[in-house]
This record gives sequence, C-alpha cells and structure tokens, in this order.
Amino acid sequence: MSSTENYDIIVVGAGVVGLATAYYLQKNSPNKTILLVDRLPAAGQGNTAMSAAAVRNMFASSTNQLLTDSSIKFIEHIQEDLHFDLTFEKCGYLWLLSDKQFTDPSVKMWMQRMTASGIKYTAYDKHQLKKIIPSLNVDFTGDEEAQLMNLQEVSYGLFGPDCGVLDPTKLVDFYLQEFTKLSKVKPRFGVEVKSLLLEADPRLDLPGEPLIWQNKRVNGVRTATKELRAETVVLATDAWTNRLLDPIGFDSETKAKKRQLFVIHAAEKKPLLDLLYTRGFSSRASIPFTILPSAGVYFRPQLQEKGFWVGCADKVGRAYDYVQTDSYATAEMAYYENSIYPVLAKYFPVFQGARPANSWGGGYNYSPDAIPFAYKESGFMVVNGTSGSGIMKADAVARIVDALYRGQPEAELFGGKRMPSNALSMKQRKVEIESVII
Amino acid sequence: MSSTENYDIIVVGAGVVGLATAYYLQKNSPNKTILLVDRLPAAGQGNTAMSAAAVRNMFASSTNQLLTDSSIKFIEHIQEDLHFDLTFEKCGYLWLLSDKQFTDPSVKMWMQRMTASGIKYTAYDKHQLKKIIPSLNVDFTGDEEAQLMNLQEVSYGLFGPDCGVLDPTKLVDFYLQEFTKLSKVKPRFGVEVKSLLLEADPRLDLPGEPLIWQNKRVNGVRTATKELRAETVVLATDAWTNRLLDPIGFDSETKAKKRQLFVIHAAEKKPLLDLLYTRGFSSRASIPFTILPSAGVYFRPQLQEKGFWVGCADKVGRAYDYVQTDSYATAEMAYYENSIYPVLAKYFPVFQGARPANSWGGGYNYSPDAIPFAYKESGFMVVNGTSGSGIMKADAVARIVDALYRGQPEAELFGGKRMPSNALSMKQRKVEIESVII
Repeated sequence: MSSTENYDIIVVGAGVVGLATAYYLQKNSPNKTILLVDRLPAAGQGNTAMSAAAVRNMFASSTNQLLTDSSIKFIEHIQEDLHFDLTFEKCGYLWLLSDKQFTDPSVKMWMQRMTASGIKYTAYDKHQLKKIIPSLNVDFTGDEEAQLMNLQEVSYGLFGPDCGVLDPTKLVDFYLQEFTKLSKVKPRFGVEVKSLLLEADPRLDLPGEPLIWQNKRVNGVRTATKELRAETVVLATDAWTNRLLDPIGFDSETKAKKRQLFVIHAAEKKPLLDLLYTRGFSSRASIPFTILPSAGVYFRPQLQEKGFWVGCADKVGRAYDYVQTDSYATAEMAYYENSIYPVLAKYFPVFQGARPANSWGGGYNYSPDAIPFAYKESGFMVVNGTSGSGIMKADAVARIVDALYRGQPEAELFGGKRMPSNALSMKQRKVEIESVII
Repeated sequence: MSSTENYDIIVVGAGVVGLATAYYLQKNSPNKTILLVDRLPAAGQGNTAMSAAAVRNMFASSTNQLLTDSSIKFIEHIQEDLHFDLTFEKCGYLWLLSDKQFTDPSVKMWMQRMTASGIKYTAYDKHQLKKIIPSLNVDFTGDEEAQLMNLQEVSYGLFGPDCGVLDPTKLVDFYLQEFTKLSKVKPRFGVEVKSLLLEADPRLDLPGEPLIWQNKRVNGVRTATKELRAETVVLATDAWTNRLLDPIGFDSETKAKKRQLFVIHAAEKKPLLDLLYTRGFSSRASIPFTILPSAGVYFRPQLQEKGFWVGCADKVGRAYDYVQTDSYATAEMAYYENSIYPVLAKYFPVFQGARPANSWGGGYNYSPDAIPFAYKESGFMVVNGTSGSGIMKADAVARIVDALYRGQPEAELFGGKRMPSNALSMKQRKVEIESVII
C-alpha cells in the first residue's frame, strides 16, 4: 500500500446520480472535502451514457411521481432559467395500449393516481391516434403473424406532455461543472475502487479484524494503489454495487440486466421523417417517446441526428447478472432482427427494412419494487436501484442523500415538495410499489 | 443431447425441503410421475446436513410462528405416533438477554406476539438462570475485556419449551422413505441440473427462441447428458437457486452466506458435561439450544456424541455470495479462535481451552424479510429462502407448494391451521416480517 489520503466524503461513481449527489453534498456542506472517483476516464461514461435518456413523470407510484416530477422540473429549470442547454425536448411519452390493457384495473389505477398527483396526461382513442400518426397500424385483423406473435392491437394511447428526452452527457456536464465550482478536491477519473475498507471500530489491530464481536464501519475505499479514507463513503455505483457490498456482507437487494439500444436513421427516408416530425402532440413537431402495447418494445426520437433509438424492456428470457458484465457493452444484432424489428414493423410498417446504423448496451439495475434505494449505514451511504430511471430521478435522490447525510428528517425537492429522508431506505422504507415499468 | 425423458413434475434438490415437497406432491397427486434429482450422491447431503438442525417456534412473525409450530408438531408426530426416531430432543431454546435487550420494544413485541399465538415461553431473571446453570457468567463487572468486546451482561433468559434439536439425516430419511413408497419414479442422485429449459410456448423453431414477443415457459431441465422434460419443475435449491433462475432472467431475491459449526466434545470433562446435562428447563437433562446476548454466538447440545455444536450468526463482515461457493465446505479455525471462542468463554468459562474436534460449513440463504418464498410461475415453482430454518419449516412450506400446485387457495398445515397458498409468493406476498433472526 503506497499511500493513504483522507477526505470527509468519497463519492464512488460519476454517473448522473453520483454527480448530482456530490453537488448537493458539497453545496450544503461547503467545508467538507469531497472526492469524486470513477473507474472510467471521464464523468457520465458508464450506464448514464448508455441509457435511452428519456424522462417521464407518468408513474403509478406516488413515490416515483414525486421523484421524477421534481427532477424533470429541475431539468427544465437548468435549461430555461439557467440557460444551460441539455437539448431537453418536451416531446412527451405515448403509451400505446390495447383495449384489454386500457380497461385493466392496474391502468385505471395508474390514471387515477396521476390525476390525484396533478400529473398531466391525455387519453386518445385509435381514431384520434391514427389522425395524428397516419403511419401507425391500428388494425391487425386477419394478420396471422401478429396473432402468432401475441401482439395486441392498438386501441388507445396515453400521452404525457411533461415528459421528454435529453442529452445525458449535457446533464452530466451541468452537475460536474457545478460540483467542480464548489469543491476543493479535483474529481479523479480512471480510478477503480476495488473494495470498501470495513474496519473494526475501534481498531485493536488483532489478527482477522474486524471480528464478530467488534463494531464495524466503512472507513474508506481501496484502489489498486491507494487507501482513500473518508468519514463517509457514498456508493452511487448502480449495477456494480454488489461487487463492493457483497464482500462486506451487505445485501443491496438489487441485480443487473443488460439493456440495448439500436439507432435507426430517418434522414432521406420520407416516411420515417414524417413519423419523426409528427405534429399534434406537443408544440414541438416530434413523435413522443413511444411504448408499444406488446413485447416491451419502445422508441424515442433523436431529433439532432434525425433518427430513432429503439429499445426493449427485457423480462424473463434475459439473464440477470450478479453485477454488470463486459458482455453488456455490445448490442446483439440478432436480438434486433429476431426480437425487436418484427414487433416494430408490425405497429409501424414505415420501419420495414430499417437496419440499425449504430447500437450499444448497458446495465439496468433492478430494485425489487422498482423504486430507488437511498440509505445510510455505518460509514457508508448507498444510492442505487434507480431501475432505468437514474436520469429522471437523479436530482431528487441526490437531495435525499444529502438530507440523510446532514441528519435532516426531510429532504426538500425542487419545487418545494418534501419527502422523508428515510423513505427510500431499506429498513424504514415507505414507498408505493411501482407497476408501470419499462 | 443423447436423450430426453418426460415426467409430470421434476423436483430439483433433495434437501429436507425438496424431499417434503416431493412427498406431499406425490401423496396428493398419486397419478403424477415425479422425478426427484440432486447433484449430490444421496439425499440430504447438502445444506440440510450442514445445519445446526434445531427447531424453534419462538419467532416474532406470525407467519414464521405458523410455519414452524405446525412443522415441529409434525416432527413430534413422526417420532411419537409413527415411531420413526428422529432423535428429536425437546431441550428447548434459551435466549440470553441483557437488561437493555429484554426491555427493548422489539423484544416486548416478540413476547406479546408469542403469547397471542399460544407459543409457550418462560422468562427467567439472572438469579433464576444462575441457579439452573451454575457455570453461566452473569457478571461482567470490572471485566475490561468484556467491555472492549462489546459483550452485554446476561440479565434475563427467555426459554421456549416446544423447541429442540434433532438429527436432520433422520428427518430426510423419513420423507425420502414416504416419497419412495408412493412414487413410481426412482429418485436420481449425483445428477446436477445445469440449466432450466426456458422455451417458447408454442415453439416455432425460429433462431434465438424464445424471442421477446413469444410466451415463455419452463419445460424441464438440462443435465450434462440429458433433457429431462416436465410440465412443472420445482426448485428446492436454496443457496443454488440463482444459478438456475438468473440465466432465465428471474430474480429469486435471495442471496447466500457461509455459516459454520464447530464441535466441542464434553466427554471426560466434568464441567462441560455438567453444562450439557443441565437439569431444570425441561424433563430431559439437557442444556437448551442457547443464544448468547452478543455477537450472534450460539450453541446446541448434541447428546448422542456428548458435546456441543457452536456457531455464530454472521452479519456485516461475512461476505454474501451470488450462490454458495466451494469455500463454504470448510470451516475456518481462525474464525473459531478469534471470533467465536473469546465470546463463548466469557459467558461460559467452562469452555476455556476447548478446541473443536470437528467442524464444517454450509450455505445460509437469506430472503429479504427472513420468511421463505413459495410460488408458481410459468412451468416452474420455487420454494427457497428458508434463511437457516429449512428443517423447522419444511413440512409447512412443502404443504403450501403442494396446495399451490393443485390450485388450492389455502394449504392445510399439520394440526389443521390454514395458510393462503400465495402468502409466501413474491407477487402477492402477505407475511409478517421477522425480527428474531439467528
């Protein structure tokens, strides 16, 4: 061990959640030294950069509604008031639903809860949808293939106007810049945390410490070359969390799965461009982030590159991994061709023949109730399990971690609403379970 | 793939839970063909054989109370009415508690809930304890070591008379014998299940099946040489469950940790024999299964071999593993010497100088709420997460799995009490979270 350094706080992970957390911690504890470390060569290069980078407040859980609605309002605030361009496009979210889905009690409850929370949405029937999106196929009559594929015909659409898409690297830049302005310690990239320093408290320097009868606390982290010591270690490590917590015997209750995105270019393809620049949902001529009724397939517009990002919510059939593996980095073309494309082309025949120009994969870290975790243990804090919605929850969960750190019973989210600081904890968890998961 | 075989049900795992499950399934569906497979050369050789093999109904959760109380009554029934000797000794459980612990609201709640459920227990103060167990040290005054070790002085004891210890291999023999009497299919040992057959339903024989738009179901298992097909696969695989469920993308929500036991012989050591044959708790001259107030250390009597099995409930500091690893098989002598022994010898100085004559390790599979899981999915069922209490819950959870299999809304447990079949499921879970965990 060549050397030791000491800080008040070490934040492990410079994805959007780690960055936002470092920022609020530093903002509200200006005298604390905060070291931000990430294994990658720059901020936001992990799963933040790999995500679909869409934000929605259309959740069924009031917990998720509060986390996302306030975070999205802060995103708007960054762009509109602070004039920091995130290329945030309020193109909305459009859930295409079959008749069976639309009348299902869970969807009714979802709509009721959105109304109760003041989350805006509009319901469209298929005739209205067809008028706005002429290329949408709402008629599978006599289509034996569609039947064989278990595809449910579109009968309704739920549109949420306060949702949208953005460039995640710009949101990363914002939090990094704000943190760097305040912090006395330069963030460190390309430094992999190998393990947590779980130590006896007090240390007696006996063999095998910490022993079962000793109090234990995390006093920092180990890298390949150094011990970085801190009073508090914050893990914002998402799909890598188990690699650090399992060895100290703490169950994160989260688990990772691979997700993939495929880029379809629309440039010079008139029918695809018409779909991309759909008018009628919002003031912006853009198709919303669109979720198909079946098989978990969705796409989002990417207006700057004149195209679509197409993805799929993998359920049973896609392996869970203990932690993210290297295989996550590469997308599988056969998966696009055999699984995603046939579904996409049924609902939107304008995609017929479309081949991805680009693709990538990343890790999606599930929590059992699809609500993030944020809690404080002895010497460490954890913020993870954002379950594919790190970008749209980062601002709120970061404020909650900061409130927990400062021992505040409540966190004030952007816009003034409050949440108990321990609501997202493991032991005193008080959340409404989510049912609307992509 | 050399060959395929077909069954109605395949039960994977011939530990006590798998055996009891196979038995009740066969008993209540006599015409079904049930294949029981285990990777080990005989039944009950895995974690069932490695456990402390103690049974208690002293839980705080009414769910666990019902599961254990009915299972223990069935164990008594096997031994008393069916005259099948399990060497079940009703020596009781003795929780030694400090003043602080005894007056803690969680312990008060535990006692209230036991009273409400008709679970018998007696509270002793330290003077009464000292009379029955003269070698118990109830006075740490001036003991600086004990203070440094965070050891809480014994002030009270909670004794549960309807608890005890048994020989797990005999309980295994009972269920195996009863199952074998009824089953037309010979159990198969030394056969490792490598993976589950997750297939498209219906199969279309397309490349990459099952695809995202296909319905999926488990249609059997793969071994090194065969496809064993079945309408229902029951996983009674405890600490190995993730190895089969993660690859098909299903989160078991359980995780394994190593546990160890150390055998201390009392033969020819008068003070230890006096402790072993303690009189005054039950009609049998035996020290109860005894839990110390601090550090999670416990021991049980083993009257046949005139000794004690000493163990410890590992918390933070003992790694979680994704699945059980080979390192679980061997106990660590340094762990006994540095962690367990110093605690044991403080509370029971008669153990001073005692060295283990034998030791072993095994896997303890945690569920997040310390309540087992039992549920039915598409083509497969899971019964796991018994969290160190497989032996004392096996009979009840097996009856619940059988009720689920037969589509019964309720399971009738031994003694006539009933539990909703889906109470231990993941999706409709209705349990009382456990707080009294060893």
